[in-house]
Amino acid sequence: MVETQRSTFLLMSKPSAKNKSPAPDVAALAKAVRSGERRAIAKAITLVESQRPDHEREAEALVAALLPSTGKAVRLGLSGAPGVGKSTFIEAFGLYLLDRGHRVAVLAVDPSSSRSGGSILGDKTRMEKLARADKAFIRPSPAGETLGGVARRTREAMLVLEAGGFDVVLVETVGVGQSETAVADMVDMFALLLAPGAGDELQGIKRGIMELADLIIVNKADGELEGAARRAAADYRGALQLLRPKYRNWVAQVELASALKGVGMAEIWRHVEAFCAALRSAGELDRRRSQQARAWMWSEIRQGLFDRLKAHRPALDLAQSLEKRVMDGEESPLGAARQVLELFARRRDDERGDGQA
Amino acid sequence: MVETQRSTFLLMSKPSAKNKSPAPDVAALAKAVRSGERRAIAKAITLVESQRPDHEREAEALVAALLPSTGKAVRLGLSGAPGVGKSTFIEAFGLYLLDRGHRVAVLAVDPSSSRSGGSILGDKTRMEKLARADKAFIRPSPAGETLGGVARRTREAMLVLEAGGFDVVLVETVGVGQSETAVADMVDMFALLLAPGAGDELQGIKRGIMELADLIIVNKADGELEGAARRAAADYRGALQLLRPKYRNWVAQVELASALKGVGMAEIWRHVEAFCAALRSAGELDRRRSQQARAWMWSEIRQGLFDRLKAHRPALDLAQSLEKRVMDGEESPLGAARQVLELFARRRDDERGDGQA
Repeated sequence: MVETQRSTFLLMSKPSAKNKSPAPDVAALAKAVRSGERRAIAKAITLVESQRPDHEREAEALVAALLPSTGKAVRLGLSGAPGVGKSTFIEAFGLYLLDRGHRVAVLAVDPSSSRSGGSILGDKTRMEKLARADKAFIRPSPAGETLGGVARRTREAMLVLEAGGFDVVLVETVGVGQSETAVADMVDMFALLLAPGAGDELQGIKRGIMELADLIIVNKADGELEGAARRAAADYRGALQLLRPKYRNWVAQVELASALKGVGMAEIWRHVEAFCAALRSAGELDRRRSQQARAWMWSEIRQGLFDRLKAHRPALDLAQSLEKRVMDGEESPLGAARQVLELFARRRDDERGDGQA
Repeated sequence: MVETQRSTFLLMSKPSAKNKSPAPDVAALAKAVRSGERRAIAKAITLVESQRPDHEREAEALVAALLPSTGKAVRLGLSGAPGVGKSTFIEAFGLYLLDRGHRVAVLAVDPSSSRSGGSILGDKTRMEKLARADKAFIRPSPAGETLGGVARRTREAMLVLEAGGFDVVLVETVGVGQSETAVADMVDMFALLLAPGAGDELQGIKRGIMELADLIIVNKADGELEGAARRAAADYRGALQLLRPKYRNWVAQVELASALKGVGMAEIWRHVEAFCAALRSAGELDRRRSQQARAWMWSEIRQGLFDRLKAHRPALDLAQSLEKRVMDGEESPLGAARQVLELFARRRDDERGDGQA
């Protein structure tokens, strides 16, 4: 496991302290977050994003302290491939919401950031006006992480932002690998941003992503692309009709937009409000969030168990050597798994992994 | 964990024996399977499907002994909702293949069978002719299981059938929950069977399933439904064009069929052969199978770890009580997971789970 130490923020408590109750400075930090102090919110997110083992307990205590103040925001996921105008859209949509008196936070889930050498939101100049706005908060994706790690930290960052008083939290992703699913699993509503390609050719949607979308936004409906955008919207509407609806009370919508000209923002926000109202009236929104929290807990348990196995050198070595044989058809997957599990179960007490390598 | 003992087949070795090397009767059983003896094949599948802990090692030894004789079949997945004519189709397609000299085996993945009180293939009379055919083998889905358990056993049953000389293995599912994904993850090619609904209304495809399909078969293209079937096929072709292709060398196809009249079987088999040829020429088929085997191994490891935790009563109790609090927003998922993991890690040696409750 890679142990990066990007965090420049250090809590005052001793790094090795493992207190059961929140340390006094965690309580102070939680209070500052709840009162909406930007620096405190940034610090709190840095803490929950920290990969330092000694920060784990503080982060947990902080989230526990903030939990009663969370849950009041609209959690909106947004996925869009590079080139569809995602930052322009977020800037336009964010500014529209600020105008209407909302407080808007933007988070990113981007497992590729470690490879591309920077977060998709790292360059805040992409959303210059929104980044400068007092009632907006833009947070780049934590770098150098697996998707699971990013998603885990993004979920907690979302809770921090909600406690900090942001009432619209937008989680964006470029849609690398399973990142859309990870985002869809932590938000209330999942929107897909598309753009008409050059000419009439539609940009292929990643297989499976349409299933996640509660709203499809066809961007760049302006200038010479407007016609193509309209045709694309019609095609997507047709394709959506072939899919079984995700909710009883909501049929996925398709909306045109021009982020460049700020067109379509009101319509999109109306869809978001209608979605929340429809799901709330049926008790579906609370149910969804409860299910998400439960799934998150079990996924953390599963991941924690797996992390312990991976931290056990002999088991990991055995697994890696058996993996080769399994791939070459020389060993059955089931038999290989059993051998790894048995070696891991036999580990001595003092070798028992505590989650760190 | 439920411990059903449906298996009426018992190996001759002592149930408690845990031999490292295959017991003599396992070797004999493997030999009989390889020579294509139907009774031996049935026995072997019963063994790999057995949930008795003392059968685990024998099953593993059997699969290990058969492994070199596997891999020569076309592994074909088929999903279709009730009412699309799945059994009629399998019967027609299977008989067509038998006519062409193939040996055809049919397996089922149906996690709902425990609830519905019977396997989707339990009633072999649904495929009367195929079931009676000498060179065909129909195996109902193991009942009373979770999807993971069914899928695990189906994978191994598939290996047994391959070693037994069946060159087309068809794995069918009704598409409950995640069963399509489970099937798609164990086969070479995944086909989706659809039928035009009454009138012009298309039957909604489950969200996400189109992403899995390498071939869409629109059944019931006969009589008064023929026109509707043609329109449905055109619509699905249009929808598929909006999706990014799954493989570089294969574009998902849509084919009409009438299982009732035996129409379309040759075309469908040509698609299967073309698919295999396309993927084989690019080395994609071997790569896919290697990746599937690797993923299977790691999924077994993850599941095995989780089974051990679930078999540890105190950890399971704690998890279940915390789950309530997590769902009510009183506890953070991360904190709850950490508590469960710590309790599990502290378990005494003599309590260490061995996978059984």
